[in-house]
Amino acid sequence: MLVRLSGDSPLHLQIYQAFREAILEGRLAPGARLPSSRGEARSLGVSRNVVLQAYAQLVAEGYLTGSVGSGTYVATELPEVTLGGPAHRSRSDGQSSSKVRLSAYGARAANASTFSSRKRVRYDFAYGVSRPDDTTLRQWQRALRKAGERPSLDYGPPEGESSLREAIAAHLFKNRGVRCSASEVVVTSGSQQALSLISRMFFEPGDAVVVEEPSYQGARHLFESDGLRVLAHPVDQDGLDIGTSGPDARACYVTPSHQFPTGVTMPLARRLRILAWAEARDAVVIEDDYDSEYRYEGRPLEAIQRLDSHGRVIYVGTFSKVLFPAVRLGFVVLPPSLVATFIKTKWLADRHSPRLEQRALAELIASGTFEQHQRRARARNASRRAALMEALASELGGAVELSGANAGIHLLAWLTSVPLSGLDQIVEKALAEGVGLYPVSPYYTSTPPRAGLLFGYGNLEEGDIREGIRRFARVLRSLV
Amino acid sequence: MLVRLSGDSPLHLQIYQAFREAILEGRLAPGARLPSSRGEARSLGVSRNVVLQAYAQLVAEGYLTGSVGSGTYVATELPEVTLGGPAHRSRSDGQSSSKVRLSAYGARAANASTFSSRKRVRYDFAYGVSRPDDTTLRQWQRALRKAGERPSLDYGPPEGESSLREAIAAHLFKNRGVRCSASEVVVTSGSQQALSLISRMFFEPGDAVVVEEPSYQGARHLFESDGLRVLAHPVDQDGLDIGTSGPDARACYVTPSHQFPTGVTMPLARRLRILAWAEARDAVVIEDDYDSEYRYEGRPLEAIQRLDSHGRVIYVGTFSKVLFPAVRLGFVVLPPSLVATFIKTKWLADRHSPRLEQRALAELIASGTFEQHQRRARARNASRRAALMEALASELGGAVELSGANAGIHLLAWLTSVPLSGLDQIVEKALAEGVGLYPVSPYYTSTPPRAGLLFGYGNLEEGDIREGIRRFARVLRSLV
Repeated sequence: MLVRLSGDSPLHLQIYQAFREAILEGRLAPGARLPSSRGEARSLGVSRNVVLQAYAQLVAEGYLTGSVGSGTYVATELPEVTLGGPAHRSRSDGQSSSKVRLSAYGARAANASTFSSRKRVRYDFAYGVSRPDDTTLRQWQRALRKAGERPSLDYGPPEGESSLREAIAAHLFKNRGVRCSASEVVVTSGSQQALSLISRMFFEPGDAVVVEEPSYQGARHLFESDGLRVLAHPVDQDGLDIGTSGPDARACYVTPSHQFPTGVTMPLARRLRILAWAEARDAVVIEDDYDSEYRYEGRPLEAIQRLDSHGRVIYVGTFSKVLFPAVRLGFVVLPPSLVATFIKTKWLADRHSPRLEQRALAELIASGTFEQHQRRARARNASRRAALMEALASELGGAVELSGANAGIHLLAWLTSVPLSGLDQIVEKALAEGVGLYPVSPYYTSTPPRAGLLFGYGNLEEGDIREGIRRFARVLRSLV
Repeated sequence: MLVRLSGDSPLHLQIYQAFREAILEGRLAPGARLPSSRGEARSLGVSRNVVLQAYAQLVAEGYLTGSVGSGTYVATELPEVTLGGPAHRSRSDGQSSSKVRLSAYGARAANASTFSSRKRVRYDFAYGVSRPDDTTLRQWQRALRKAGERPSLDYGPPEGESSLREAIAAHLFKNRGVRCSASEVVVTSGSQQALSLISRMFFEPGDAVVVEEPSYQGARHLFESDGLRVLAHPVDQDGLDIGTSGPDARACYVTPSHQFPTGVTMPLARRLRILAWAEARDAVVIEDDYDSEYRYEGRPLEAIQRLDSHGRVIYVGTFSKVLFPAVRLGFVVLPPSLVATFIKTKWLADRHSPRLEQRALAELIASGTFEQHQRRARARNASRRAALMEALASELGGAVELSGANAGIHLLAWLTSVPLSGLDQIVEKALAEGVGLYPVSPYYTSTPPRAGLLFGYGNLEEGDIREGIRRFARVLRSLV
């Protein structure tokens, strides 16, 4: 007996499903004749209409052929294969799931160590979060509403909304001395996408790329997944030194304005050397200017992009640090000869970035609101930074050594009295005290020279910063 | 004389720029001594303070060393290289721009034929635009506002907002019979990104992929740019037939519910054959269900995904057809064993899709608003379709032959009396009459069998459809 009635679903659906499964599993072979609707109804104890309804659906879907009167048959053109496991089972059950072959990229990506935001604790020194103040949030909501009132419904240009490209070009010139026309700016979905498209456009698996040691691991994981050989060059207090001959590589990925995560600034001589190296090696320079909006002392150094007269620098920027991470908007500034190809690469990847946010951001920048926000955020983060440095000095004194404190929204603290092996225990104990601490080790390709912690302060009030450091100091004293 | 004062910018900036250029271009060598500020001020006829200001900036930026009194020198650690063309020139001038080497992918992408929306005309039969009605727009705006009131500021999960994944799983089960749990759904930035990530995850350059002939060219261009061998299999009135042995390929990209662009539906037997083929060849099936929401007669056939018991089908969906194109949100439903790797691939590509739109869409679906919208849109598009078919029949009669009219937001019309070579002239003349016509040829890898036009009707009122066809008929009569 093929059909067994049970469960709550309508009778005709139960009958339909039972026959469907029997056909898919081969228990009813192609060409087999079905019981008459009258006979089936009798043996199931249901009305004939119910069976007719089930048969009709199976005919409509191609499982059965024939019509009332002339008899009903399993469709003969169904392939003579058993399709494996019971067809009604959700694939989640997984028993019969084949092992599908991945590409080399897929296999590497499967093992990539991506990361996601950890659950927040009360005193969380997580890096990369800069919470905007209420004024900025309101202005952002207003800009979104305004952009949404007359929404752009059609596909947008792959290179980005022209209003946003104009706004970015003007913003960069004013704030970073980056000279570019709007036509050299391409909007991306965050700087992660910018790096991903650059990597595809320029590099082959096996190519070498120079990165800083330590460096932003989102970029490094990407390069590794793309099959590149990552050459990690150590940074000193002046950042990365490519040297006079320089390694044989296709690219150098650098954060010259504010090295991530050490926070040091690369002086002019080294910047020029990187440009000379790139020209000699036929390489590109990827300049990631992820947080140069936050600089508290002195004038920011000009971007490498501005020194480039050979069209070898690709400048990458993002709004996730100066606004907030969920704004998935970044951009690249490209040498003119590379713009068209980059735009095609972007189109192939996802056609274009979200228009609504693009237009809201363009409005925010063009109206001057964004600059006011920047100024406020800079002041706020400067106070946070002062509070953090003060707290570290007064609570921990000589037990920490700070690196790169005059810019950004984080600083790096080397723990002078803690061995590398002792860090995990500190992090764990601090977490129990409500303090989120983040070792610098994930940013290294090898073992870091000493125990270091990255303190992000863009998301904490000054009082919380002080209390967090107090608790951290207590943990440290209890263990060392 | 190095400095020549002219132009409107402040004097100290002009002096700064002149020395900066001289140093970068090698006219002032590393170690060279600069004129004293007093002497330079005298020879330029400016106050000494102006020169001091310029020198100070150059010192701060690393071009010069020394201080007032002890003499000022060009920094010795600057590399002994001339950096090529004048450094003050914007790169846009391009003269000295090097030819930067691209990857094989980059070179292919440079030649990819991507496409963007054409400028709209009054009677535009462009495909793929479905303008939502005012009610839907208002509801979408409200959902956006609601999502924006308590914005998610932090990075989001790469797999998408859980509320949206839940909503999509429920929506698919109800509307498409696709059985999946939310954990098998990954949100992407449109179906273009879904296809791009699938291609990277599974295919190597040189791999073969079966596509329909004709087919959606956005997918084909992507596969070609990825270096795949595209095997175009002709579709007949039952869609693509993979055959009993089937080609040796890594994947088959199909639109079984409503073949794009011919509009035909693939019957069960062929669907099952594709599954059997994929299992035999260790291949994946990419099922693009781009517009199955719009079906006007009969019950939609169940998705191939539902027949898959081996975990070989990746179901791709999008909201750009049922809402509007600028909503860059699509999704994939993956076999459980492939979910984790796909999420990593997504992370590496752009971390995550925009949270605001995701949350707004989740709200729209969960509240039932989306389903109401779908129902209204279906009714509206059914009337448009009826108007189009009626107009084509009454104005053109036997001169057109329609394909695939019972679903979607477009139909394909073969022109029986027009030779292939005559189509361009018709399109051009129609455009002059305010009618946007779209030949089917771009969807073919080779020459189409006959002259055909794709009529999108999702963005036109019934009156405009009738008037557009009237004008088209007039053009046709004047030429044939």
